[in-house]
Amino acid sequence: MAALPEAPLRASVSAMVSRADIAAASSRIASHVRHTPVLHITGAELGGSCPVALKLELLQLTGSFKPRGAFNRLLSDRLPASGVIAASGGNHGAAVAYAARALAVPAEIFVPVLTPAAKVARIASYGARVVQTGETYAEALTASRLCQSETGALEVHAYDHADVLAGQGTVARELEQDAPELTHVLVATGGGGLIGGMAAWYAGSARVISVEPEGCPALHDALRAGRPVDAPVGGVAADSLGARQVGGLMFSLAQRFVTGAVLVADSAIVAAQRLLWERFRLIAEPGGATALAALLSGAFVPPDGARVGVLVCGGNTDPAKVAS
Amino acid sequence: MAALPEAPLRASVSAMVSRADIAAASSRIASHVRHTPVLHITGAELGGSCPVALKLELLQLTGSFKPRGAFNRLLSDRLPASGVIAASGGNHGAAVAYAARALAVPAEIFVPVLTPAAKVARIASYGARVVQTGETYAEALTASRLCQSETGALEVHAYDHADVLAGQGTVARELEQDAPELTHVLVATGGGGLIGGMAAWYAGSARVISVEPEGCPALHDALRAGRPVDAPVGGVAADSLGARQVGGLMFSLAQRFVTGAVLVADSAIVAAQRLLWERFRLIAEPGGATALAALLSGAFVPPDGARVGVLVCGGNTDPAKVAS
Repeated sequence: MAALPEAPLRASVSAMVSRADIAAASSRIASHVRHTPVLHITGAELGGSCPVALKLELLQLTGSFKPRGAFNRLLSDRLPASGVIAASGGNHGAAVAYAARALAVPAEIFVPVLTPAAKVARIASYGARVVQTGETYAEALTASRLCQSETGALEVHAYDHADVLAGQGTVARELEQDAPELTHVLVATGGGGLIGGMAAWYAGSARVISVEPEGCPALHDALRAGRPVDAPVGGVAADSLGARQVGGLMFSLAQRFVTGAVLVADSAIVAAQRLLWERFRLIAEPGGATALAALLSGAFVPPDGARVGVLVCGGNTDPAKVAS
Repeated sequence: MAALPEAPLRASVSAMVSRADIAAASSRIASHVRHTPVLHITGAELGGSCPVALKLELLQLTGSFKPRGAFNRLLSDRLPASGVIAASGGNHGAAVAYAARALAVPAEIFVPVLTPAAKVARIASYGARVVQTGETYAEALTASRLCQSETGALEVHAYDHADVLAGQGTVARELEQDAPELTHVLVATGGGGLIGGMAAWYAGSARVISVEPEGCPALHDALRAGRPVDAPVGGVAADSLGARQVGGLMFSLAQRFVTGAVLVADSAIVAAQRLLWERFRLIAEPGGATALAALLSGAFVPPDGARVGVLVCGGNTDPAKVAS
């Protein structure tokens, strides 16, 4: 992908998330989130030749990377008595609910009807009020904004906010610390908060590759169009990766720092989930196995000498479905 | 527990496993096993106050720590054309089968009838011949030895061999490297290969505590009796921790370097499995959750200022049972 011409880059600098922002986020959230471990494996274990580092972010609090962004957002702003409000496919909602409870403010979470029951239960278990409405995340977001205009609660956007991006970017800071040798990092993209934040951290020092399901190609389509555009939302990972559009903030970062955007079939995602259980005893949700699916399916082929990091970014699923 | 008098210690030195043996084992097996990661968590996450380091050995090849000892044994001896033979509750058998396949020799594995079908299938998946016979591990061992006397295959004992102990001790070497601050390490005991090897590595520099199910108290009873004695074999973790007696080699090490031996109820083990899934998205088998159960149930109470390591040593179970 060609770099953007220089003028637009300069124009968007004020919207960018910097390494300094991410380092500050790391300090801010350190006592609230887990530094998740990395499992280093040989290429042979995956039938290839390049060494792979699995970043086990599915071991994060609430079962996904989302608390990083949620805590950074909540700790960066004044919290009104009416608390916080968010729309989510499930994981972000759980993270916001968890963070709100930790910081002793109320939370109201809007999720679409496709959100699995286990995720709804998890959000409620953290004491949040859950409203399940709309077919997709985008519709739940619209409903949450209508509610927010009445309550005055602080909106915690799932991905399109600088504090959320900086929070998610702390994953990359940890990964660089624990696996400084990486040349490529594969990250699943939904609305783009995770990959946007990570790309901002690496800023070209490692190649950051987006992986999306064929059924949710929001970043793939946006990069082709040159701007965020509406994309289909469907398939096995829709509850975690099913944003209608990528965020505007992440898009600037992606144009500059995301090296490629590949798509994988649902069957490849399910196969990656199965392999993570059979060979690693890890239960990943479909969105959590999507980045690995690119490597296993050949959608991404590492060049000679590559050392590849793979984000395993969520584990909120029914294990019986993965291991059956 | 009082230290042994000096004379017996000296007498048993030749049977001891040294830190040098374990360091040599680490070099020998390094290209064959995974360096498993550590997850550092705050005490508050478990309702206590002392920091905890979970050694995620359930992410090891074959789903338990056992390949360390198996590879060290197979790589330390001449392998006959008739291959290798072992008796096992399941995990050791899978490891021996895996190692034998990697080193291109045949393997024959004896397991008792209590071994779960999933473990039998896993052993067979590595190409080994599986014989399921006897009520317990001890009976399967007897049958395997009868067979060995006919075939001349190399016996790979599940725990009572210096090379196996040294191999398992490599877990402690990794843990000390990744979490040098630990004052106490909790380890589940079956036949004692894992805790024996780990105690040999720490050699008193951290306090190594044995945790057994009430239904499988082999080390607890042996330490009281002053020698390995027959103990009951039962309960939810019997397939991985159900040795009738601890090994003689490990017993010498345990008398010298194991600081305490606590027992936990099956209900505490099941609760620990549940917590590992709910809060960490980890699927541990009963034996893999037993060490953590001691901390959660209060069977082991860390003293002020303690920093506790917990071995999560196996994940070979049906996830639907853990997460239901």
